Amino acid sequence: MIIILKKDSQKESVNRLVKILENKGISANFIEGASQSIIGLVGDTSVIDMDNLFAQDCVEEVRRVQEPYKKANRKFHPDDTVIKVRDTVMGNGSLQIIAGPCSVESEEQIITTAIACKEAGATMLRGGAFKPRTSPYSFQGLEGEGIKLLLKARQETGLPIVTEIMSIADLDLFADVDVIQVGARNMQNFKLLKALGECDKPVLLKRGLANTLEELLMSAEYIMAGGNMNVALCERGIRTFETMTRNTLDISAVPLLKQKSHLPVCVDPSHATGIVSLIEPMSLAAVVSGADALEIEVHNDPKSALSDGGQQLTPAKFAEVMTKVKDLAKYMGRTLGK
Amino acid sequence: MIIILKKDSQKESVNRLVKILENKGISANFIEGASQSIIGLVGDTSVIDMDNLFAQDCVEEVRRVQEPYKKANRKFHPDDTVIKVRDTVMGNGSLQIIAGPCSVESEEQIITTAIACKEAGATMLRGGAFKPRTSPYSFQGLEGEGIKLLLKARQETGLPIVTEIMSIADLDLFADVDVIQVGARNMQNFKLLKALGECDKPVLLKRGLANTLEELLMSAEYIMAGGNMNVALCERGIRTFETMTRNTLDISAVPLLKQKSHLPVCVDPSHATGIVSLIEPMSLAAVVSGADALEIEVHNDPKSALSDGGQQLTPAKFAEVMTKVKDLAKYMGRTLGK
Amino acid sequence: MIIILKKDSQKESVNRLVKILENKGISANFIEGASQSIIGLVGDTSVIDMDNLFAQDCVEEVRRVQEPYKKANRKFHPDDTVIKVRDTVMGNGSLQIIAGPCSVESEEQIITTAIACKEAGATMLRGGAFKPRTSPYSFQGLEGEGIKLLLKARQETGLPIVTEIMSIADLDLFADVDVIQVGARNMQNFKLLKALGECDKPVLLKRGLANTLEELLMSAEYIMAGGNMNVALCERGIRTFETMTRNTLDISAVPLLKQKSHLPVCVDPSHATGIVSLIEPMSLAAVVSGADALEIEVHNDPKSALSDGGQQLTPAKFAEVMTKVKDLAKYMGRTLGK
Amino acid sequence: MIIILKKDSQKESVNRLVKILENKGISANFIEGASQSIIGLVGDTSVIDMDNLFAQDCVEEVRRVQEPYKKANRKFHPDDTVIKVRDTVMGNGSLQIIAGPCSVESEEQIITTAIACKEAGATMLRGGAFKPRTSPYSFQGLEGEGIKLLLKARQETGLPIVTEIMSIADLDLFADVDVIQVGARNMQNFKLLKALGECDKPVLLKRGLANTLEELLMSAEYIMAGGNMNVALCERGIRTFETMTRNTLDISAVPLLKQKSHLPVCVDPSHATGIVSLIEPMSLAAVVSGADALEIEVHNDPKSALSDGGQQLTPAKFAEVMTKVKDLAKYMGRTLGK
Repeated sequence: MIIILKKDSQKESVNRLVKILENKGISANFIEGASQSIIGLVGDTSVIDMDNLFAQDCVEEVRRVQEPYKKANRKFHPDDTVIKVRDTVMGNGSLQIIAGPCSVESEEQIITTAIACKEAGATMLRGGAFKPRTSPYSFQGLEGEGIKLLLKARQETGLPIVTEIMSIADLDLFADVDVIQVGARNMQNFKLLKALGECDKPVLLKRGLANTLEELLMSAEYIMAGGNMNVALCERGIRTFETMTRNTLDISAVPLLKQKSHLPVCVDPSHATGIVSLIEPMSLAAVVSGADALEIEVHNDPKSALSDGGQQLTPAKFAEVMTKVKDLAKYMGRTLGK
Repeated sequence: MIIILKKDSQKESVNRLVKILENKGISANFIEGASQSIIGLVGDTSVIDMDNLFAQDCVEEVRRVQEPYKKANRKFHPDDTVIKVRDTVMGNGSLQIIAGPCSVESEEQIITTAIACKEAGATMLRGGAFKPRTSPYSFQGLEGEGIKLLLKARQETGLPIVTEIMSIADLDLFADVDVIQVGARNMQNFKLLKALGECDKPVLLKRGLANTLEELLMSAEYIMAGGNMNVALCERGIRTFETMTRNTLDISAVPLLKQKSHLPVCVDPSHATGIVSLIEPMSLAAVVSGADALEIEVHNDPKSALSDGGQQLTPAKFAEVMTKVKDLAKYMGRTLGK
Repeated sequence: MIIILKKDSQKESVNRLVKILENKGISANFIEGASQSIIGLVGDTSVIDMDNLFAQDCVEEVRRVQEPYKKANRKFHPDDTVIKVRDTVMGNGSLQIIAGPCSVESEEQIITTAIACKEAGATMLRGGAFKPRTSPYSFQGLEGEGIKLLLKARQETGLPIVTEIMSIADLDLFADVDVIQVGARNMQNFKLLKALGECDKPVLLKRGLANTLEELLMSAEYIMAGGNMNVALCERGIRTFETMTRNTLDISAVPLLKQKSHLPVCVDPSHATGIVSLIEPMSLAAVVSGADALEIEVHNDPKSALSDGGQQLTPAKFAEVMTKVKDLAKYMGRTLGK
Repeated sequence: MIIILKKDSQKESVNRLVKILENKGISANFIEGASQSIIGLVGDTSVIDMDNLFAQDCVEEVRRVQEPYKKANRKFHPDDTVIKVRDTVMGNGSLQIIAGPCSVESEEQIITTAIACKEAGATMLRGGAFKPRTSPYSFQGLEGEGIKLLLKARQETGLPIVTEIMSIADLDLFADVDVIQVGARNMQNFKLLKALGECDKPVLLKRGLANTLEELLMSAEYIMAGGNMNVALCERGIRTFETMTRNTLDISAVPLLKQKSHLPVCVDPSHATGIVSLIEPMSLAAVVSGADALEIEVHNDPKSALSDGGQQLTPAKFAEVMTKVKDLAKYMGRTLGK
């Protein structure tokens, strides 16, 4: 960590600052510049709350040198994290395809869709039981009933299930779920992250609409700090000024997250774009960028869907996309599912 | 609501769409354009999920004409909402000043700060007991103990207390709190909003870092849909590309929210800027823009603060700011607190 | 175009509006809604300045139905534009690789780099003679001398040259250049666009840092309105809140632009990311997304470069990237350069 | 400037870096951290191109300590710049009101509007002769003829005139103009900035839609580096994800720019919001934030305006706004015009 001192700092204020640092076991190294001086801190600066240094009179700027995340940091954990999900794994170089409807709507819908997804090559089943909706007047999901239907669909197809949690209060309902998804709007629901850190289920953590990659990694750190190392990160589009797409897929997040962290990285082209015709090119882009998994919305009858109708693929369209994805994966030397 | 049809839509697809609409009691009015046709929908379009219309083959675009919020909408509730907070009110043309530390740290700290805030003119006391922190390794708040200390400070000063909730599970601890704050990161924690809709406490709802004003109003709608009409909105800065300030204060949000909605509007210049020297000008800007309340971070000893040290005012600096604020409020014909 | 009327519009104001429209040959179709009325406009609405309609008392909102660009619009020109560049073409399904240094610095530098680029598979040579630099104290390019050196490099290698123009005043210097590049900061330098519309050189138009795809297409329209149809679009990253990368590559822009327009689309992973290790994955992502060209910064000795040192590839690293790009292009059934 | 070294940097690479620095007269001070080392640079680091340091193998990060602008920097020029404009001045604590139409449309329009503006209290006249329009099919301004009409309006009213330049080629036409405006889209048209640096006219430099305050100051630096110190900065809204307003007024830019720089600061609430009803509150907010000038669009008949109809005030509405602005200015102890 580096502290840039104000131009005319008073000695006593600087001394006060140095003492604060020394009390935390940090040594302060001064560099006197032409017009300003800086202090380089040596020691475990993770014990320092950066914001608080600003309160000292003599401090103009504070800049971090080290990343604030440790458990999620590849520097300290060079090997890829491989997450076991039932009898398959994520993060070992294979490509997982998580497909299924935005919302679980009925037994027939989820089972029909699950079978179609599996046939086309999906390796996991997604489906929302609890739905975060902008409007209180929109369909909010089947909740506990939805999870039961997902479990039936798993029984039918063998596909592990991935579904989103919205509140700690519902955690018990997720006991048999294979992967718990944390949605973009809950990426910084720290209480929820802590609770998930205390269980041992794989967590698929989605990037918030306006969150930096560092913040995403810090949210992963929250879960990992609690002892749960089974975290996968998911890029699902960020909010920008562009209005033609629902969000803007930050494709460079994939290789960057793989460099900075050892956690598996997933891409959700459905939410990132909101446009059916973009799912195929964005899926291919994710594969060549190094994504460990894709999450794609598929509905047996999108025209009758209760949510996200406009961005869900029909099984036929999904099968088309999968043909391209499978061929490309093969070309890249990657297997689908383990 | 308006539907723009694709150029070469097939008749049967359009007929299917019209039937879906009619089944919901909506009548479809066609306008044949030079190169494209549109349908204008007449009826209660709030029953339609806009996204789903996109799934119909013939639909190119869907545009809303009416706002999706009703209870929060000034069109349907022309009179200002006035929220009772103990023996004072918010939204009646008065200016409320909510001041206090980022975090409650100790009895001495919160009481000393509360007394100083009151002396300078604050009309409510803020203080975080539950702290949403980006890092799991940062101070997370005194939690229940913090709320107890706030209640002591209220007893000491008579100031109503405002404090943030992070999880439904903690709701009982807020029984004696005067105003429950929902932080920016929880603005779309819909489960929490629903739970708050079922209680009758005033809620101070902060705008998310990347949320539009319409989304903020939809989140207020969530609370109001549950029956709790005591919602105040808070602009606290949005995330942009600018890096000199912590966030960018969207000052135009104040008059816009007052036009679109009847709910009181608060401005938090501390989080919006993160820079002590900007609190005064931004507070004044908020007052002349029509804000019903200001929320300002004040700490009896910012240099020793456990969080947000850099943006909290000393009591002396706060008193200076308040002198300007009080004078300006008087000039604008507004009273401080009721 | 659709006009949403204010709730309590006065008849005379609405009549005035209708007359204005009729004077422009537009017919107005009314749809009376439950709480608001709308007018659907039929006729050539491109003659209407949308902003101006807002000045009418009765107008609450105006929404466009048709895209405001015509010559750049695929709806009216379904066939791909193929741009001839010396003895090669862009936009015919081939993949063009435009490589070279950020700035032309010396004869030796540009010729060495050009030869290395060609050997690795580049099909065109880029190099900045006029450099838009944020600081007036940074190297500003060799200007006219730089263009001469590029022409020498072309003579040496046969590679067509692509270089950026910053001012109409310099247009004569570009007489022998093969493709004139318009930089992101000049995307809405309308005078420059107009001047380029009057020449017949191919133009590579880069998207502005905060410009929407519609604005990019409108800028292309400026050039095309002048008669020059040889426009290629270039996605080079947009400005978002993310700070880890220099910009955020909007990869979905590639298929979207190809859908909305018939113009060739190029991707510049160097400026989009600013990070050497991301050039390869982003290049591959661009190829599978359907880009017609890549523009990549390569320097024979990045450590001594006068600008953009940190994001330029060495010839050796570029050759590595090209091996992957060529293989992938082949797999996708695309040839490099025609 | 601080350089953060990569974890396992090789000695020879670090030595190479140190030599490069020393050759520029910079001394390198090492701080060996627990897991990483940093170098603090002492000397005139403005001669270093930050980007280029990244090309060195051993460099992980480079962070600037000093601002890259000098002539625009208050640290080196503590006194406010006061710009003489005919017989009035900007930047001496007075409040200048620049009012007038978006575009000059006719002699009658500009003179009628100018007289009305003056009567209401405007101290300068704005009016666009050259209009940057997104669409090539929109009205592009009267160009040279428009400037002549502005000069007539000045003769009639005595108000100094402010008008926008779009190209160096037109510079001669601005010989009698009082203040040359550089529009947001040209903020980084560096050739234009350089040309303006060589003349002695006051320049009103508008912030680009997605430009940081540091970039705005660097563009001012371009003009000042050429010798023209008469630069005023203008905040006119930035581009964010919010869609309810045309742009987002960054009101905190006003006090920040005044702190960082000695140049006068203007606010343009018309372009920042695009909404007539927001001009008054945003003007008042600008005044209390410390703005030296307001720029407001006024048209004698907005309903017939050829551009920006929806955001221009009628003379009557402008007079209303001015009553509030004048009263507030008086309350703040500021005079209108000198």
